[in-house]
Amino acid sequence: MKPKLTLVGAGPGDPELISVKGVNALKSADVVLYDALTHPDLLHYCSESTIKIFVGKRAGMHKYQQQQINQLIVKYALPGRNVVRLKGGDPFIFGRGREEIEYAEAFGIETAVVPGISSINLPGYYGIPLTIRGINESFWVITATTSAGTLSNDLKLAAHSNATVVLFMGLKKLNEIVALYKSVDKETLPVAVISRGSLPDGNLLIGTVTDIETLVKEKKPLTPALIVLGETVGVHPEFYTEAETLRDELLENHE
Amino acid sequence: MKPKLTLVGAGPGDPELISVKGVNALKSADVVLYDALTHPDLLHYCSESTIKIFVGKRAGMHKYQQQQINQLIVKYALPGRNVVRLKGGDPFIFGRGREEIEYAEAFGIETAVVPGISSINLPGYYGIPLTIRGINESFWVITATTSAGTLSNDLKLAAHSNATVVLFMGLKKLNEIVALYKSVDKETLPVAVISRGSLPDGNLLIGTVTDIETLVKEKKPLTPALIVLGETVGVHPEFYTEAETLRDELLENHE
Repeated sequence: MKPKLTLVGAGPGDPELISVKGVNALKSADVVLYDALTHPDLLHYCSESTIKIFVGKRAGMHKYQQQQINQLIVKYALPGRNVVRLKGGDPFIFGRGREEIEYAEAFGIETAVVPGISSINLPGYYGIPLTIRGINESFWVITATTSAGTLSNDLKLAAHSNATVVLFMGLKKLNEIVALYKSVDKETLPVAVISRGSLPDGNLLIGTVTDIETLVKEKKPLTPALIVLGETVGVHPEFYTEAETLRDELLENHE
Repeated sequence: MKPKLTLVGAGPGDPELISVKGVNALKSADVVLYDALTHPDLLHYCSESTIKIFVGKRAGMHKYQQQQINQLIVKYALPGRNVVRLKGGDPFIFGRGREEIEYAEAFGIETAVVPGISSINLPGYYGIPLTIRGINESFWVITATTSAGTLSNDLKLAAHSNATVVLFMGLKKLNEIVALYKSVDKETLPVAVISRGSLPDGNLLIGTVTDIETLVKEKKPLTPALIVLGETVGVHPEFYTEAETLRDELLENHE
């Protein structure tokens, strides 16, 4: 057998959200290198003889560096094995899939990609559209934290646009994000925080630029969490309810 | 049985790119309403007794309006049937899924969403990352053509950003898009056109803002097509090759 690497997107948590093609790749794998964000049930698709290696980050444990993962892929594939690299979400949407593909190809290893349902699909899963005809025609997906640790400059431009903004890794920067949106007079813009994807402990918080920080302090959503900012968040029934409660309170105080 | 509607994302063409959850929904469906962009093989998951109704657009045939589809969903679900609405890509990424959910819920019909791999995953599938650490930290997904038929205003802002821009329904507006990018001095920006998704006749064209119009005129890519503009497109091997050919030509002319 020729050495082969297949990057497989495991989807956003729920093990049933992997693709049929991803399942087939797991079934025929000689070796699987899997991340912390992939569901353990997915490994049940592999045969008993499949070598299963955890290469993710886990509390208190050694964290694999990208370079080490690249080397493991090559080490296992070169003798003629079928290696599957199982990654949370989609391998190419903030997944660093390209680095693994390029490294493996430099050793003459054949590569393939099986896309996965990404965290970008989660707002829809929770009933929040990213675009609504007549309201907006785009969405902008941003890593809130740059590799230098600062808030992304793109976000400053995005706050001015009508795009629904989807932020990865933004929870730790929530105060800066809120300050930015307030500085462009978007205090009432609806905001959602989706935590833990489609896992059983997945959770949705809905508020506005003004109150989302308080909500997050109260409810303490777990990571990974996605922040969604935009008028389209406002069509979620929970947002209606909150707006109605607020309106009722205002009316009561007015009486 | 209680009336139920499940919106299922069929993925971007290849029938193996539906999720396991989507397959299970099809297996238990009493009725399936399916689009033109969903692969016919997917209907083989249904039982023989499943009512299968095509509600897409097809050359020379009647086109269903959204309102008619909404009414069909309700008509078939209300007597206590399990209706699956099978949509190309993801039901919530430019999929108008919300309109169907809201209409059905107004009749007391229980609803669920099974996300799908979207066209947004296609650049990765073709080896084009949407973000690369150190190059950019975001991508912006835009319907090029607004419901009014004009070029999206968001695109004007996007052309100024470092985001990789992913355009739906942009092929007919390619001349305007090219003119816009030229007006902000991005003549050499890499551009990809991905047509027919992950179907067997799927195809990738790679060029720059300067030559993409000529390429499209020559190769005539089929619809649906996705346009991707950004520095990250430049890491694709085909772009390297093109750049090298150009360099070689320049060197030859120089000699």
